[in-house]
Amino acid sequence: MATYKEAGVDLAAADQAVERIRSHVTATWGEDVVGGFGGFAAGIKIPRGYAEPVLMMATDGVGTKAEVARRAGVFDGLGLDLVAMCADDLAAAGARPLAMTDYLAVGKLAPDWVEGIVASVAAACRQSHIALIGGETAEHPGVMEADEFDLAGAVVGIVEADAVIDGSTVRPGQAILGLHSPNLRSNGFSLIRRAVLPKIGLGEQLTEGTAAEVLLAGSVLYSPAIQRLLQAVTVAAMAHVTGGGIAGNLSRVLPANIDAEIHAESWRRPPVFAEVAEIGRIDEASMFQTFNMGIGFIAVVDEDRVAPAQQALEIESTLIGHTTAGSGKVLLRA
Amino acid sequence: MATYKEAGVDLAAADQAVERIRSHVTATWGEDVVGGFGGFAAGIKIPRGYAEPVLMMATDGVGTKAEVARRAGVFDGLGLDLVAMCADDLAAAGARPLAMTDYLAVGKLAPDWVEGIVASVAAACRQSHIALIGGETAEHPGVMEADEFDLAGAVVGIVEADAVIDGSTVRPGQAILGLHSPNLRSNGFSLIRRAVLPKIGLGEQLTEGTAAEVLLAGSVLYSPAIQRLLQAVTVAAMAHVTGGGIAGNLSRVLPANIDAEIHAESWRRPPVFAEVAEIGRIDEASMFQTFNMGIGFIAVVDEDRVAPAQQALEIESTLIGHTTAGSGKVLLRA
Repeated sequence: MATYKEAGVDLAAADQAVERIRSHVTATWGEDVVGGFGGFAAGIKIPRGYAEPVLMMATDGVGTKAEVARRAGVFDGLGLDLVAMCADDLAAAGARPLAMTDYLAVGKLAPDWVEGIVASVAAACRQSHIALIGGETAEHPGVMEADEFDLAGAVVGIVEADAVIDGSTVRPGQAILGLHSPNLRSNGFSLIRRAVLPKIGLGEQLTEGTAAEVLLAGSVLYSPAIQRLLQAVTVAAMAHVTGGGIAGNLSRVLPANIDAEIHAESWRRPPVFAEVAEIGRIDEASMFQTFNMGIGFIAVVDEDRVAPAQQALEIESTLIGHTTAGSGKVLLRA
Repeated sequence: MATYKEAGVDLAAADQAVERIRSHVTATWGEDVVGGFGGFAAGIKIPRGYAEPVLMMATDGVGTKAEVARRAGVFDGLGLDLVAMCADDLAAAGARPLAMTDYLAVGKLAPDWVEGIVASVAAACRQSHIALIGGETAEHPGVMEADEFDLAGAVVGIVEADAVIDGSTVRPGQAILGLHSPNLRSNGFSLIRRAVLPKIGLGEQLTEGTAAEVLLAGSVLYSPAIQRLLQAVTVAAMAHVTGGGIAGNLSRVLPANIDAEIHAESWRRPPVFAEVAEIGRIDEASMFQTFNMGIGFIAVVDEDRVAPAQQALEIESTLIGHTTAGSGKVLLRA
């Protein structure tokens, strides 16, 4: 007789994993969370005081950084990566993240290891003031290898209808602020796996640590800084620098009659980018199309608001360029 | 020189896929959707008229039904599966789904094939009155095979705080209504792959079609029926029958002093379940723990409200049991 467990789906292990993650998940819940753990869905009370509240959603995954994490056996940074990939997209539209769900697909459900990943997601949610109100751990035996996994998520947030930021108010002569990223965040890992990791081991010493430490460092969570920024100054446009790099993402929010001139030497570039380029023999243009190059988030503000904007952000930022009359292009200058 | 495209990530194909899915996605948008296609996040205006609105979220994937779909080259049902898995969990908590995001991980991004899957998700969203306001297609070269994929999603909905349904008002003597499912929905496919598919081809003729047709038939979307039900009668508890089957899911919403007596012969069981059991040599207990067995959703209502409940549902349902004083167990009786 065949059973689901013999088929590789272990419902008892799933129950055990659920029990282990319970305290991590509920630690993200404030008094505004409705519904218990283990129901079909949980909720969060919609904050009051909005005249015309809009719900916004964003979804993303950590990509094949998960595969590098698996090889290294290091999972701590993935929670920061997942929450950053989702919540910082939402923040770029001007929204305040409220709640999220995570989706973890695994070859074989090992409760220890699932607990570690979900704990890292929950910790990052707490740092971003997000309630983790749902999640799915799916066992895919025979499709994924036992220790293979994929991690994705979705976030919901709120914004006043007339406060949605879509770049439509960008004018020539505005300042482009770049928020620093000390590491790769969660993009470009297919290129890392193909061009870099065949040449060095994960234990190889790079400037700022071993390859595993440097490559797998968790993403900066920009959303809390962006919420402070939005309270302090008027922001014309924002971009979360993910796949496609600075140009690919900033161009998504530029009006058709505006260019963005970015001075690529204006910020201190963390050493990992030169090391990846050299080891992987990746040219500068490809590096800029694939990686954040040290700028993980961009905000466009009036030039006279640069100082209060930088103060509100608290995290490190640099004036990296200006908007000009143009045709919707991002121009990277040396 | 290495590039991202050589590493298997084709940003041009991604752009092309995005263009192809645009019309499918925006066809799910009503006038309440805010923000354009291709921004960092899109939104939906929160419906007015709620005294204390609660946002609810749910997330799920189609599991390894995706793997069977890949082998068969048949993807049409997956949109129904994804939307049902997410939205019907939300409906079980009493919420009305508003918007969702989808997450598609692929080995190699083939725009045609991605368009087909996203089109099926968008069509199912329209049937469930859900705006598809975000999505991610992630290419995982070297981790997934070229035509391997995984499909997950997340949904957000709204419910009045005092209308959240969590089973707390269930009393002895209430009626248990089972909503019919003509097929497997999106659970149990690891067992299907292990116990059934090694013995028959996907072209094998079963009672209601080929194995591919029968196994890959899309899920019924219960949420629209549940919204009608909630308008018509007071509902004490609901359960979406997914992994764990009728007992595993109904027990999630039973109070600790109530049992549910289910009469397993009370509904007409679609032939696929007997065929899967016979071909796969799966015993009755394992079948009930893994599959919906013809009942995909359950609602507990007062006995004198069975007729108006069934009328409001419109889709086929059967009185399959009653609640009794007990200890939180689901008792399956012959």
